[in-house]
Amino acid sequence: MSIQPRPYVVLCGGLGGSRFVDALARAAGPDRVTAIVNVGDDVEILGLHVSPDLDTVLYTLAGLLDEERGWGIRDETTNALELAGRLGGETWFTLGDRDIGLHLVRSRLLREGVPLSEATRRLAERLGVEVQLLPASDDPVRTFLTTPAGELDFQTWFVARRHADPVTALRYEGAEAARPAPAVLEAIEVAEVVFLAPSNPFVSIGPILAVPGIAEALGGKRVVAVSPLVGGKAVRGPAAEMLVTLGHEPGVRGLAQVYDGVATDLLVDPADAGELPGALVAPIVMVAPESRAEVGRAVLEAVR
Amino acid sequence: MSIQPRPYVVLCGGLGGSRFVDALARAAGPDRVTAIVNVGDDVEILGLHVSPDLDTVLYTLAGLLDEERGWGIRDETTNALELAGRLGGETWFTLGDRDIGLHLVRSRLLREGVPLSEATRRLAERLGVEVQLLPASDDPVRTFLTTPAGELDFQTWFVARRHADPVTALRYEGAEAARPAPAVLEAIEVAEVVFLAPSNPFVSIGPILAVPGIAEALGGKRVVAVSPLVGGKAVRGPAAEMLVTLGHEPGVRGLAQVYDGVATDLLVDPADAGELPGALVAPIVMVAPESRAEVGRAVLEAVR
Repeated sequence: MSIQPRPYVVLCGGLGGSRFVDALARAAGPDRVTAIVNVGDDVEILGLHVSPDLDTVLYTLAGLLDEERGWGIRDETTNALELAGRLGGETWFTLGDRDIGLHLVRSRLLREGVPLSEATRRLAERLGVEVQLLPASDDPVRTFLTTPAGELDFQTWFVARRHADPVTALRYEGAEAARPAPAVLEAIEVAEVVFLAPSNPFVSIGPILAVPGIAEALGGKRVVAVSPLVGGKAVRGPAAEMLVTLGHEPGVRGLAQVYDGVATDLLVDPADAGELPGALVAPIVMVAPESRAEVGRAVLEAVR
Repeated sequence: MSIQPRPYVVLCGGLGGSRFVDALARAAGPDRVTAIVNVGDDVEILGLHVSPDLDTVLYTLAGLLDEERGWGIRDETTNALELAGRLGGETWFTLGDRDIGLHLVRSRLLREGVPLSEATRRLAERLGVEVQLLPASDDPVRTFLTTPAGELDFQTWFVARRHADPVTALRYEGAEAARPAPAVLEAIEVAEVVFLAPSNPFVSIGPILAVPGIAEALGGKRVVAVSPLVGGKAVRGPAAEMLVTLGHEPGVRGLAQVYDGVATDLLVDPADAGELPGALVAPIVMVAPESRAEVGRAVLEAVR
C-alpha cells in the first residue's frame, strides 16, 4: 500500500457509500482513497460481531458483493443460518455462509482484543483491497431512531421492520464517549477533498460526524457532500422520506439544510441541478460497476 | 420425554459410540437410553466451541449425519470455512456450514453461562432427539497423547496428523477437577445395564472414566464393554494399534485387560469369540443405519 498521503477521503455508509468509494477508487486509484465508514449499524447476530457498512464496502471493493441484492456476497448459501434457526437461533438478519466466515474471523479478533480498525485492516489486506478502510471509531456507536412505534435500534427499524416507521428523531448511543479510530483524523487532515458519500445523511453520515473530533477536523477543509437523491428520490433506502419527517425541505434543498455548516459544496445529479443553483453537478447514478469509473472521473472533474 | 428411569446407559465417543446408541435406541426405544458422551476431544475452532463426539451422536440420532464420511452433516457445504481461510482463519479442522449453525447457537449459550449439558439438552430437544444426551462433564477435560513426536492434543494428533503417531501414554487434562455433569451419576445409578460403547477405550471411554465419581458409580453395576474390534481390527480408527503401543495384548484380549476391574462383561463380535472364551457374543457391525435395530436387539438378547 502507498505511504503517500491519500488526497480523497470519503465518509460513508453501506451501499451508496461503497459504490461511491468504488467509483473514486476506479477513477483516482485505490491507493489515493480513504473511506471512513459508519459503525452505527453494527449489531451482534448469533454471537457474531457484524459491521454491515464496513462489510458492504469491503465486499464491493473486493469484487465479492451481490450487486443485485446490494448486500452480502454473491452466489451465497445460507445453510448455517438455516440450521441455527432450527436450533432456536435468530434468523431475521440474514447472514450468508461466506459472510459468516468473515464474521467468525473478525469476531475472534475482537474477542482477543484486536481493535475493529486493525481487524478491518487485516481483512482488507487479505482481500487485496487497497483503499484504506477505517471504521469511524473502534468504540461502540449505535444508532437509535424515534418513531411513532417508540424508539428502535437501527437494525430492528431497518431490517426487521423494513424502515416503514417514520423517523422523528435520532440518537447515536455511545458517540459522546467514542474516539475516532486511529488514522481517522490524520487522514482527514492530509486530504485535499473530503466527500460525504451519497449515503443516508442521518443513519450513515450522522453517526460518523457524531464522534467527537471528526466534525471539528472537517473545519477549514473542502467538504463535498454528494447527494444520495436523484430527481428528489433516494436511489435506494429511506433518505428522501427521512428528510421530510425530520423537518427539512424535501429533496436536495433539505439535504443542503442538513449539511449546512459541515459541507462547503453540494454535488447533485443533473436531474436535481435546477433545485439548487450553485451546487456542483455530476451524474451520480453508479449502480452498475462498469459505470463507476466514469462517475468517479466526472465527480473529480466537478470538484477540480 | 419419558420420566421413567432409563434402563440402558451408554458411555460413548463419536462414531462407533453414536452407532451403538442408535442401535440400542432403535431396539429398545429412544426413551429408554441415556448416552454419557466424551468431551475430551472438544476444541475451539474459529472461536466456536466444537464438541465432536456430542455432535456425532446428535447428528446420528437426528438422522443428519453424513454416514459415508462418518462425521458432520450430509449434503454439507463449506463456504464459511473457505472464506475464513482466505481471511487467515484456520482450516485444518473442517467445519461445514450447517455444522457452524449449530456451533454458533451452542457457543453463544456457553458464553452466556449456560452449561454444556443444558445447551446439549436444548439442541437435542430442537432436533427431536429422545435419547438423553449428557456430556460426561460440564467442565473442560482435554485428552493429550504422548508420542515420539512429543505430547499432542487430541485434535492435533487425530485430525491434523491423522493419528499416525504411535501413542505411548495419555493424560486427561482437567479431569481431576472436573465434576460429572448433572444427571450423569443418577442415570448410572438407576440403569439396569451400563454399556461401554464400541468406542476407542483410551480416547473416548478413558476421558469419561477419568471424571471423578463416574468410575466409582459403576461399582456394583452390570457393565458391559462392547468391543470396537472385529476380527482384531477396529471398524474405524486407531484402537487396535493403540492397544499394542500402550503395552496390552493385541485384539480383544488386550481390551479385556484395559477394562479389567471396570466392566463385568465383554461383548465381542462372533469373529473374535474364539479369542476370549466367556465373552458375550453378538454381531456388532452396524455401519449401515438399517442394520442397527437388529444389532441392538442381538446385544440386548446377549446381555439378558
